[in-house]
Amino acid sequence: MRKKSDKISNAVIRRLPRYRRYLYELKKKDVEKISSKDFSAMIGYTASQIRQDLNNFGEFGQQGYGYNVEYLYDEISAILGLDHEYKMVLIGAGNLGQAISKYVTHMQQGFNIVAAFEVKKELIGKSVEGIPIYDYENLVDYVEKHAVDIGIICVNTGNAQEVADRLCFAGIGGIWNFALVDLEVPKYVALESVQMADSLHSLAYHMTDRREEWEAVRNQLRNDDLISKEKETSEKEETAQEKSE
Amino acid sequence: MRKKSDKISNAVIRRLPRYRRYLYELKKKDVEKISSKDFSAMIGYTASQIRQDLNNFGEFGQQGYGYNVEYLYDEISAILGLDHEYKMVLIGAGNLGQAISKYVTHMQQGFNIVAAFEVKKELIGKSVEGIPIYDYENLVDYVEKHAVDIGIICVNTGNAQEVADRLCFAGIGGIWNFALVDLEVPKYVALESVQMADSLHSLAYHMTDRREEWEAVRNQLRNDDLISKEKETSEKEETAQEKSE
Repeated sequence: MRKKSDKISNAVIRRLPRYRRYLYELKKKDVEKISSKDFSAMIGYTASQIRQDLNNFGEFGQQGYGYNVEYLYDEISAILGLDHEYKMVLIGAGNLGQAISKYVTHMQQGFNIVAAFEVKKELIGKSVEGIPIYDYENLVDYVEKHAVDIGIICVNTGNAQEVADRLCFAGIGGIWNFALVDLEVPKYVALESVQMADSLHSLAYHMTDRREEWEAVRNQLRNDDLISKEKETSEKEETAQEKSE
Repeated sequence: MRKKSDKISNAVIRRLPRYRRYLYELKKKDVEKISSKDFSAMIGYTASQIRQDLNNFGEFGQQGYGYNVEYLYDEISAILGLDHEYKMVLIGAGNLGQAISKYVTHMQQGFNIVAAFEVKKELIGKSVEGIPIYDYENLVDYVEKHAVDIGIICVNTGNAQEVADRLCFAGIGGIWNFALVDLEVPKYVALESVQMADSLHSLAYHMTDRREEWEAVRNQLRNDDLISKEKETSEKEETAQEKSE
């Protein structure tokens, strides 16, 4: 029995794909059930955190039994909306767009890129991963006509909002944005951004924050190497000396 | 004057690249200063939120003056560690790896990919974006010898932990992970993951959550289209009739 609370925090929603990922691994290994303790150890959250998260959507675990892997996997999939098929279009068929196409195509999870759109004349008429590349001018028509669900934005920062506007105008349901810009979309349009530069900058911050520690480790490694090399050399010399004696 | 608090929340750190991004846009437009009110309107956080975030790192704004754009940009860059250069290696030179290389190379922000590593014999010896592709077996040696700072993991889920282990063994400072797996690394190694499938699943959730709304909008669009087409047709018919009269 699945109830749906009204206000589910974004943090919970971000954890769901992760739960699902681990359940998928268990399923692949034909594990039928897992205790909340083992699941917690596996996933790295406390058992009570997991229970709390899942309680947002109904009752899943059973006292003294744990979780039924397949059932929980299916339910989380349904909560995430992965029991639907999604028609997607890609806007921007450059390198990043091509990589995303490949990635999505290989996922094979009900996300289907049906067309790509470009302004570059030399790309129009070609295809990427078997997906036809059309003229960007035809985007709105296409999205409307084929009731496309999701638009993937892989264009330059400066053009991303214009693309988003066209997608929304054409009645898109969600936008998956890879441009490094905060897009504005109507409230009923779902928006997820993968902003790689921001992620890289966070990484740089965390490295700066612990620079002393890792530089110490690195220097240690280098010293160890020097010592073991000196040792090797002196051993070789000894052996050479022994042999010559 | 920059102080450094000990515990700065991850949420704050995630907002810094965004502040920096907006400051960069202002700099490009030769804006010298911005009031905290205008900055807040631009970035979409309250002025007090921004003040609070920045206070973690020292005093930046001035009452009645606002923020000095260039100074704040430089300071945030320094906090993020972007006043350093980073040597990076790419592991996995497939489509995703190639797209990431292109992305990073075009960023031109002190992040330099110096080598790529592959197990696929047909890729070894080639290059991607001018970056030489070496045999994966030489990864540890190379990272040690060249004091590489960051490893970018673009391999399959199943191999990612093994790659991370080698990188850490070789004294890496940070890992930028694109494999859909939660990696374990020593505490002194910084880790940032870009898990695109998780992001796509969050998007699906948010779409499911507001499916009624966007389907209503979509249906409305379709009806409008039908009406305008009917109108067009009847207008044409009328014109035709008028002409024939």
